[in-house]
Amino acid sequence: MDPDSFKDYAKDMAEYITDYLENIRDRRVLPTVEPGYMKPLLPSEAPKSPEQWKDIMADIERVIMPGVTHWHSPKFHAYFPTAQSYPAILADMLSGAIACIGFTWIASPACTEIEVVMLDWLGKMLDLPKEFLACSGGRGGGVIQGTASEATLVALLGAKAKKIRQVKEQHPDWTENEIISKLVAYCSCQAHSSVERAGLLGGIKFRQLEVDEKYKLRGDTMAEAIRKDKEQGLIPFYAVATLGTTVNCAFDRLDEMGIVANREDVWLHVDAAYAGSAFICPEFRYLMKGIELADSFNFNPHKWMLVDFDCSTMWLKDLTYVINAFNVDPLYLKHDMQGSAPDYRHWQIPLGRRFRALKLWFVLRLYGVENLQKHVRSHIAQAHEFEALVLSDPRFEIVGEVLMGLVCFRLKGSNELNEILLKRINGAGNIHLVPSKIKDTYFLRFAVCSRFSKSKDIQYSWKEIKLRTNEVLEEQSLSK
Amino acid sequence: MDPDSFKDYAKDMAEYITDYLENIRDRRVLPTVEPGYMKPLLPSEAPKSPEQWKDIMADIERVIMPGVTHWHSPKFHAYFPTAQSYPAILADMLSGAIACIGFTWIASPACTEIEVVMLDWLGKMLDLPKEFLACSGGRGGGVIQGTASEATLVALLGAKAKKIRQVKEQHPDWTENEIISKLVAYCSCQAHSSVERAGLLGGIKFRQLEVDEKYKLRGDTMAEAIRKDKEQGLIPFYAVATLGTTVNCAFDRLDEMGIVANREDVWLHVDAAYAGSAFICPEFRYLMKGIELADSFNFNPHKWMLVDFDCSTMWLKDLTYVINAFNVDPLYLKHDMQGSAPDYRHWQIPLGRRFRALKLWFVLRLYGVENLQKHVRSHIAQAHEFEALVLSDPRFEIVGEVLMGLVCFRLKGSNELNEILLKRINGAGNIHLVPSKIKDTYFLRFAVCSRFSKSKDIQYSWKEIKLRTNEVLEEQSLSK
Repeated sequence: MDPDSFKDYAKDMAEYITDYLENIRDRRVLPTVEPGYMKPLLPSEAPKSPEQWKDIMADIERVIMPGVTHWHSPKFHAYFPTAQSYPAILADMLSGAIACIGFTWIASPACTEIEVVMLDWLGKMLDLPKEFLACSGGRGGGVIQGTASEATLVALLGAKAKKIRQVKEQHPDWTENEIISKLVAYCSCQAHSSVERAGLLGGIKFRQLEVDEKYKLRGDTMAEAIRKDKEQGLIPFYAVATLGTTVNCAFDRLDEMGIVANREDVWLHVDAAYAGSAFICPEFRYLMKGIELADSFNFNPHKWMLVDFDCSTMWLKDLTYVINAFNVDPLYLKHDMQGSAPDYRHWQIPLGRRFRALKLWFVLRLYGVENLQKHVRSHIAQAHEFEALVLSDPRFEIVGEVLMGLVCFRLKGSNELNEILLKRINGAGNIHLVPSKIKDTYFLRFAVCSRFSKSKDIQYSWKEIKLRTNEVLEEQSLSK
Repeated sequence: MDPDSFKDYAKDMAEYITDYLENIRDRRVLPTVEPGYMKPLLPSEAPKSPEQWKDIMADIERVIMPGVTHWHSPKFHAYFPTAQSYPAILADMLSGAIACIGFTWIASPACTEIEVVMLDWLGKMLDLPKEFLACSGGRGGGVIQGTASEATLVALLGAKAKKIRQVKEQHPDWTENEIISKLVAYCSCQAHSSVERAGLLGGIKFRQLEVDEKYKLRGDTMAEAIRKDKEQGLIPFYAVATLGTTVNCAFDRLDEMGIVANREDVWLHVDAAYAGSAFICPEFRYLMKGIELADSFNFNPHKWMLVDFDCSTMWLKDLTYVINAFNVDPLYLKHDMQGSAPDYRHWQIPLGRRFRALKLWFVLRLYGVENLQKHVRSHIAQAHEFEALVLSDPRFEIVGEVLMGLVCFRLKGSNELNEILLKRINGAGNIHLVPSKIKDTYFLRFAVCSRFSKSKDIQYSWKEIKLRTNEVLEEQSLSK
């Protein structure tokens, strides 16, 4: 493709993208396709010769769009938001053109250096304790991971390496395998599935602890679990505090867990994947009380801060253990500046990495902190608007507290009834929600997701939910 | 940012990108900045209000470019190539706009379905055995991982889960920890650092075996290592065959290793991260002889097949073990179609994933197989051109065989002399190379990397190497 064609095609694509996004409300949020729908629409082999651009553009609507779940539609209320914005797309174009792999400083100094500065900018926006920031000149610093799953795993591996080293000093005769078999980590029973996966990957036991009536993991519960485990000769080494669970956006008591973790020399990792973006607004920072007691902190600007996936930002108070956890250092990756600048390959699971900090840079500068705060506040206000609508209808109840952009609710009555309702809502496909469950209570999750979402969308979605509720309740009473 | 501004800015960016790439030869390939260069160029905090687009565009040259190592310059010969192309950038724009997270089929059916079809297209382009392809209707299939590191780890975890299960059936009284402590894996001592890292991550022993005089791991060597380990009560479970090592692009004897692995029930993973792209050309497929004996195969279109990072394609003959290795299944991720279509979240380490298959689709269609073959063949021809130049100068010798786009060479003489030469070459910054070492022999790696690279660039680089050689040898003789 010659450069002039690229410029023409980029124009076409920008036109298509704006048309898609600005009119996304008109599309059915959930597709109606069946598994395997695409195979008959495509040839069974790659073309030998180049195809025409116009055919490819035409195939987007013919082949791709019928199978897209429109995450950026204001009618999408499933999971949590995933970020999307024009500034991020522009930055990604540049990233795709420079296309450097920033595994070491020398492999592209700009890629590393801007990441360091952006993580400092962002850390200051959240008012993180200065120990986490590279600009403090200590052992701390930030890095962009691909996902929160990877951040949880990286912190776990750092904690594991640290504890093995400590134990070996006390018991030089214990083998590494013996020590590992005694290691035990803690999280809330409401923590994300990726926390459990990190435990499986790291080959260590994870205790999923009970929560209080507000679905928060408390310090006492953790202290008691640690006490019991130590009695049995086990070695507590790692805990994850979730700020904003996926299940119902509950916040663990970081302040209490922090005291216990520090006392017991347990690495405390904070998973604020979704809710972390809200901490750019001072009024929500009470929810991260105790952050100064944590060892690592992670949230996803690619969820709620308008930076396209993947951009999961992580800060560590002391990098040493993570960096030393995998001391694999071949000659072809060595360089003269080692030690005077971060080599991010030591901070992550993969070796390769894209130039992702550009997305942060563009989004922070083209929105400005004020507009990002406005975005978060608007989602939270819309969630409260939806909460009020639910509370105004005596057939419904709210599950848990509405603190962020997520409202958990259910029809008073059986789980089965709520399952039928959700199936009906998603079957109609006008809006999209997913369910969750705590203990034996099944409920519906309503997340405000789209950057286009406005009050009128909340009203629309509520109207749709009421319509489907009426249908379901009518059928239920007829069948009795 | 309103849609009209986005269209204007995308036009600016396309203009900048083409200008950057089409004139990339004029830039110094290696930057001259020092660690910490960027901090004084940027404010210490994010801006409160939005900034102007023109200021951001101006900052690309002021802040970013002085610190970029230009991986796509024809003067860049370090590491291995990383891919970059206009079609991939266009696809990424679309991916950034749709911005779905394809962790399950229902989360965006198109994202999963096109990945299945693209991995079949690509598998056929490489003439992979049909057991690896989803279209064969068996237990096999392909997936896009972020990096080869992750593919190696995923295969290792699948192999580990499989072997633990097998051993538990024979020895129900053995604990999982006991079994894990006996597990042992194998690779060549020339394998990539990420293989060693996968062993560390998976918490298992990795034996790095000796290679023959052509730097290949042989079947007999592996068989002997397995025999010794079994004698000691250990349990061999996993082996990695590297096709195209990073050190000097050597190819393990997959055919021999395959026979041993199959006989010993050891999972055989093939890491063809760089060289795999060459298998789209029939004349290079002799190098993957024995592929039908492997359990998993991985290569990186994001290295040598013009698909921007990240796109590391992996095929498995039997998905069962990988999928079951991390059976974590929360309600909010369940859906009605489970089982009738792949849920890619079970195939990978992270939960989230971008819509990466679009890049493959655009690149395969806009280049066509013929032009991708032409690209690979041209790089290999240029490597042979460089090899001939080296051989024409009696001061130099070639290390290993030139089979792909990499030439390993050195000045006849001491390692120190070659280290001085490399330092001089990179110090001048007109071209960029990295070194490698096998046993005690230090040498220089010359990789043909850029899609813009032509014969004239090879001639330029060789002239530069000769110039620096003359300087170094002259100084050496003066100092004697």
